[in-house]
Amino acid sequence: MSLNVKIVGTGLLGTSLGLALARQGIVASLSDQSKSNLRLAVEYGAGQVNSLEPDLVVVCVPPDLTADVVLAELEENPTAIVTDVASVKGEIAAAIGRSPNASRYVGSHPMAGREKGGPGSARADLFFARPWIITASEAVPQAAVELVKDLALRVGALPVELSAQKHDAAVALVSHLPQLLASALATALSSGTDEQLALAGQGLRDTARIASSDPDLWLQIISQNAESIRPLISKVREELEALESSLENLGAQGSLAQVHSLLARGNQGVARIPGKHGGKYAKYQQVTVMIDDSPGALAALFTFVGEIGVNIEEIKLEHSPGAPIGLVELQVVPASFDYLVAELTANGWRLV
Amino acid sequence: MSLNVKIVGTGLLGTSLGLALARQGIVASLSDQSKSNLRLAVEYGAGQVNSLEPDLVVVCVPPDLTADVVLAELEENPTAIVTDVASVKGEIAAAIGRSPNASRYVGSHPMAGREKGGPGSARADLFFARPWIITASEAVPQAAVELVKDLALRVGALPVELSAQKHDAAVALVSHLPQLLASALATALSSGTDEQLALAGQGLRDTARIASSDPDLWLQIISQNAESIRPLISKVREELEALESSLENLGAQGSLAQVHSLLARGNQGVARIPGKHGGKYAKYQQVTVMIDDSPGALAALFTFVGEIGVNIEEIKLEHSPGAPIGLVELQVVPASFDYLVAELTANGWRLV
Repeated sequence: MSLNVKIVGTGLLGTSLGLALARQGIVASLSDQSKSNLRLAVEYGAGQVNSLEPDLVVVCVPPDLTADVVLAELEENPTAIVTDVASVKGEIAAAIGRSPNASRYVGSHPMAGREKGGPGSARADLFFARPWIITASEAVPQAAVELVKDLALRVGALPVELSAQKHDAAVALVSHLPQLLASALATALSSGTDEQLALAGQGLRDTARIASSDPDLWLQIISQNAESIRPLISKVREELEALESSLENLGAQGSLAQVHSLLARGNQGVARIPGKHGGKYAKYQQVTVMIDDSPGALAALFTFVGEIGVNIEEIKLEHSPGAPIGLVELQVVPASFDYLVAELTANGWRLV
Repeated sequence: MSLNVKIVGTGLLGTSLGLALARQGIVASLSDQSKSNLRLAVEYGAGQVNSLEPDLVVVCVPPDLTADVVLAELEENPTAIVTDVASVKGEIAAAIGRSPNASRYVGSHPMAGREKGGPGSARADLFFARPWIITASEAVPQAAVELVKDLALRVGALPVELSAQKHDAAVALVSHLPQLLASALATALSSGTDEQLALAGQGLRDTARIASSDPDLWLQIISQNAESIRPLISKVREELEALESSLENLGAQGSLAQVHSLLARGNQGVARIPGKHGGKYAKYQQVTVMIDDSPGALAALFTFVGEIGVNIEEIKLEHSPGAPIGLVELQVVPASFDYLVAELTANGWRLV
């Protein structure tokens, strides 16, 4: 099926979408208020500048501008379906719902991105194997939803249908809450001394990592999803209040039980995160191998592991303060653990 | 220099210490109230059961028992130096400081561990390249401190001298605070639906990972360091309160600026965590390669990267919900980035 696609906004997402469609033989029609972004996207091969009448318009502009641009595109293209890629859906859907053209708008959110923006960071495979959430209102005909689903499938993404409200509640929990807690944790680090921070281990690194996200983009996301985020923040704040009170009165009846409960409920909560390939969170077993920190060392290790036929589920390179060596943490399914340890040991690898 | 070492408590740390000393030709004298743990540690080769007079006693029992066992060992071995491995130091030091034998006690904390306890999880290299913090009081002669430093160096650890108070303040910030925030975040996941949690990405996984730690052990750690932890929890709780109020009144003057400030200060805080090899936190550049999820695929990738001479600073295997492929995120120093991308692309690797 041939498809005329217009992409409005040639930043990271718009340009990546154009590149992905080009691989499928679809030359998108591109537009952007920034002439230099537009020229760059065309040069990259993400599409062309033309005035073909589109079947589908994909609005790829920042969240704060999305509703207005969608409305303008619905007006300008009276037969086209219009979708967008903003990562919060409810506020935009409400703004567009008041338009007579609302039944041609299908909200969507490809859960893909990179830490750097702009067309220069675009990748044709950006959407590959990522969820692409479609949040059409009930007023939208199924054919319009199918058109956006078809777009997602063409670029290798996995379409998931959700209402805008359910979408916003879900990303508040799995994306916006961890972002804000990582930021709050990281603010506390500012009061630390260099001596203290030198003792940081992998636990702190992982917990605080996403605190390095772009504040300008995240301000737009957080402020559009404030209603879903606030009760989650309140819940965590209440946990911290209860913890403070327990820590202040450790002798009092029930204080230790309260701290233990927080830790135990944390165990239960983290166990609910699904693992690789959408399966249940698997408790892998970990083997740590010491290698020298040179380009060939990792290759030799993975060649060996590949040769003995063991599949690695997770890898982490561990930091060794002050030591020119690397610790490689390999996570494997429990069934592979004993065999991997035996083979590594028998072949002279140094296990930690 | 020959050294008679007695290890009290043959769990993960005690047995690992015995194994590490055995590699250096030192046969430790082992003791444990649990006959089965003791027998297992001896079978593993972590030492022997004998009544040699020790130069150094290392108490490797849970934090709540440490002070009492240290006091008993000081009494029982009137010329020995006694140290311990508990991960909170102030409360134990205070309890021991009242003893006439206090000048023979040198507190210490090897920053090493595994998610599983017991002698069966012991590893001779557990302490290798990890900080080993020594928290002797000023009343302790330098020779005693040197003896513990010597122990740390013999097992490959990196000795760091700190007062007990400074130690406890440091681990409250870099270890106990992230643990409690990860737990608090994870408790919020319990309210999520399976549909919501299926959308979890790497950000949530990393932020919540350490919430799977052992509640019994952590209860002891947290309750012994309550005084250092409480103000840090209060500070984060205050950040969340301010955030809640901003989210509730987004129209009000200064609300957006307050949210932006949290995100921006988070950027600054996370940038203070030192990177690999104790250097400043480096902003590596990331290259993501798509491979099929088979044993040989990683090997082929790392063999190639090794052959072109590029050193990998960080690796992450990315999860692709529902897709039987692997996305490998490689972090490299900026100077290697363009070359790596060009070589991978020219040789048919699929970059995302």
